[in-house]
Amino acid sequence: MPSDPIGELTELLARLPGVGERTAMRLTFHVLGTEAEYAAALGEALSHIHARVVRCEICGNYGAETRCAICQDPRRDATVLCCVARVPDLVAIEKSGTFRGRYHVLHGLLAPLDGVGPDQLPLDSLLSRLEADGVREVVVATPLSVEGEATALYVSQVLRPHGVKVSRIASGVPHGGELEFTDQVTLGRAFEGRREI
Amino acid sequence: MPSDPIGELTELLARLPGVGERTAMRLTFHVLGTEAEYAAALGEALSHIHARVVRCEICGNYGAETRCAICQDPRRDATVLCCVARVPDLVAIEKSGTFRGRYHVLHGLLAPLDGVGPDQLPLDSLLSRLEADGVREVVVATPLSVEGEATALYVSQVLRPHGVKVSRIASGVPHGGELEFTDQVTLGRAFEGRREI
Repeated sequence: MPSDPIGELTELLARLPGVGERTAMRLTFHVLGTEAEYAAALGEALSHIHARVVRCEICGNYGAETRCAICQDPRRDATVLCCVARVPDLVAIEKSGTFRGRYHVLHGLLAPLDGVGPDQLPLDSLLSRLEADGVREVVVATPLSVEGEATALYVSQVLRPHGVKVSRIASGVPHGGELEFTDQVTLGRAFEGRREI
Repeated sequence: MPSDPIGELTELLARLPGVGERTAMRLTFHVLGTEAEYAAALGEALSHIHARVVRCEICGNYGAETRCAICQDPRRDATVLCCVARVPDLVAIEKSGTFRGRYHVLHGLLAPLDGVGPDQLPLDSLLSRLEADGVREVVVATPLSVEGEATALYVSQVLRPHGVKVSRIASGVPHGGELEFTDQVTLGRAFEGRREI
């Protein structure tokens, strides 16, 4: 049986999120239409990404070394931690430039239906950082979804006995948001979380 | 300077059509979140696609051998050729199941502004097939765009002196198309190309 390299590449590309069979086929033909050097470079980058990217042994952030750039940066406040579900969330917070502490990446959220229980979350390593770094506050920045809220609650329950302040990022109407088109839960949270001005 | 594998992969992915910087970042983190085997398999497939996929020496179609599956298939009528701009067009025609002849892939269209002139189109190889295979008809199935129409006209001018019938695929209102929402050019072509019923 002859091999089918076009079909194989298309099938692999179609497993990417947001890439259907038609898009995968289009990408395959696009790659075939460009220089072989580009396909080789992209292929190399993909093949070695898992080997080249290491999870920081302290916080779980991705990096090229065993300790990530943020954990190695002495200017970052080690006494305030921000607990996030995934590295892209960390990246988004970094881009906003509003947080100068360090992070703790859970690499997941509590999802009992998907078999993700408390044991799968790296909370032991979070607890061990509390005393080692004299942590004063942990800001829980998991998503404002059902799983994110449940995880935030669980994290706060685990941390509170250790005498650390646990806070949750605010929930409310987003910047530029129209009240008319804001859902009821968000409006309710915006009122609950109102602040004196 | 430390290397930045995440940034490198993201930059390469962002060169794909329809993939912006945000999507590329999302894909990179998705790949990091899946098993390393998948990333390795996709990377391998990409790295070797140019080496594994060969242009058919007869028609220009992609295949794993020097002659594509269609040119090797004795059941295909060698006396009727369909001239297409790109391999995905050939794939679409094959899926429709309406054509039982063979193909000739131009791998491009006349585009003087992009520096693609008549010399870049493989018409010599098309001419050499006319006599060798006793070709009766060439159906020109380039797109119904400006470049596609110009290329079709040029192909017909090159072929006609050789006594071969040259036809163009029909242009009109597509299947399921509403007249109300059909553009004027298409409606004009639909009337020009009307047939007795």
